[in-house]
Amino acid sequence: MRDAYHEELDSISDSLVEMARLVGSAIGRATTAMLDSDLKLAENVIEADQKVDELQHDLEARAIALLARQQPVATDLRIVVTSLRMSADLERSGDLAQHVAKLARLRYPDRAVPSDLHATILEMGQLAQRLMAKAAEVIITKDVDLALQLEQDDDEMDLLHRTLFQHLMDDRWKHGIETAVDVTLLGRYYERFADHAVSVAKRVVYLVTGEHADELQTDVQPEIQTVTTEAESA
Amino acid sequence: MRDAYHEELDSISDSLVEMARLVGSAIGRATTAMLDSDLKLAENVIEADQKVDELQHDLEARAIALLARQQPVATDLRIVVTSLRMSADLERSGDLAQHVAKLARLRYPDRAVPSDLHATILEMGQLAQRLMAKAAEVIITKDVDLALQLEQDDDEMDLLHRTLFQHLMDDRWKHGIETAVDVTLLGRYYERFADHAVSVAKRVVYLVTGEHADELQTDVQPEIQTVTTEAESA
Repeated sequence: MRDAYHEELDSISDSLVEMARLVGSAIGRATTAMLDSDLKLAENVIEADQKVDELQHDLEARAIALLARQQPVATDLRIVVTSLRMSADLERSGDLAQHVAKLARLRYPDRAVPSDLHATILEMGQLAQRLMAKAAEVIITKDVDLALQLEQDDDEMDLLHRTLFQHLMDDRWKHGIETAVDVTLLGRYYERFADHAVSVAKRVVYLVTGEHADELQTDVQPEIQTVTTEAESA
Repeated sequence: MRDAYHEELDSISDSLVEMARLVGSAIGRATTAMLDSDLKLAENVIEADQKVDELQHDLEARAIALLARQQPVATDLRIVVTSLRMSADLERSGDLAQHVAKLARLRYPDRAVPSDLHATILEMGQLAQRLMAKAAEVIITKDVDLALQLEQDDDEMDLLHRTLFQHLMDDRWKHGIETAVDVTLLGRYYERFADHAVSVAKRVVYLVTGEHADELQTDVQPEIQTVTTEAESA
């Protein structure tokens, strides 16, 4: 039988998984809302983010209560503190999905994404959703190999981001500045969303293996680098 | 005399103040590097971010050690947990200053910012630096009134961001897509930097007053809203 402490810890882990599922669904639906110019779906995503925020606040309160009541040390303490940081990653991911949905709403009934970028943005949205689904699985299984896969998936996101910038920097770009601004911001939202999913997975790796260095590198990884590469080759 | 617990807590607070000062200086110098196309200064800012990351890791380790050894409850516990979150805000602010510096390095010897936007970007950089200086002061003084001032300063940042977008969306924009992309990303870096400074101040307010609602609102505040306003009026 699980003791009270481990039951509380499990319930925190369950909340993290639920948050990951909600924001994974949100980024998928936000992408659809944008590509289809579906106002109702966009508003649905925007409203749904409140649930993610509530979950985070609730999780935070329970984690603090657990620290106060159970006073865990060593690994157990590290788990609780890391959970707090993961919940911050997930809450922020929810904000980013909401930003995508808000852009869809803003441009409605027009489409924010020109048709020649439709496929790339769809891929970015789907990849973001897959990354978050894997992050949820990593929280459940604590599977270090799966966690490390997320880094490779993130390379794929960087590649898509570069493709996006290649389009933007192409002399034949004909969609004007407003769309260029929209696409620049969208690219950044997806990239940051992916970063947070990778960060969640790496925090699990840290808990399991005690290795910390990689996590630092992810946090520091500069998004501008992606732009850089493209801008330099453009 | 202070007991061991409060001495440790003070040293965590000192580290937060040091981090805030480092990242405040970084955003100021990154802005100068970009506006003057000063490669050496840009590289200096990029390297200096490592110190911020080290401070955060060190702070985190000390906070966890403090939780394990002293097992604080109630307000004391909340202070430690909130410090961890503030350090994450500050570490991320450092990354954003580094992004600005990387853009300066990328465009060197050209200037990323066209001369008609020089004044606006300078103001954004200075305001970001002031916001972080105030956040540091709020950590030291726990002055709730000063903390609330940061929100007004942040409104000023939103206004500057709108000015930036007005330039971008102006039919007379003649700087091409690459510069539009650079300016879009820059605007977002400064805005996010300011958000983190406000977030640090609000976490102090929460510790002092126990009021939490505002903090939530800052986290959720959508940056795209600013763009929205401009895009809609453009």
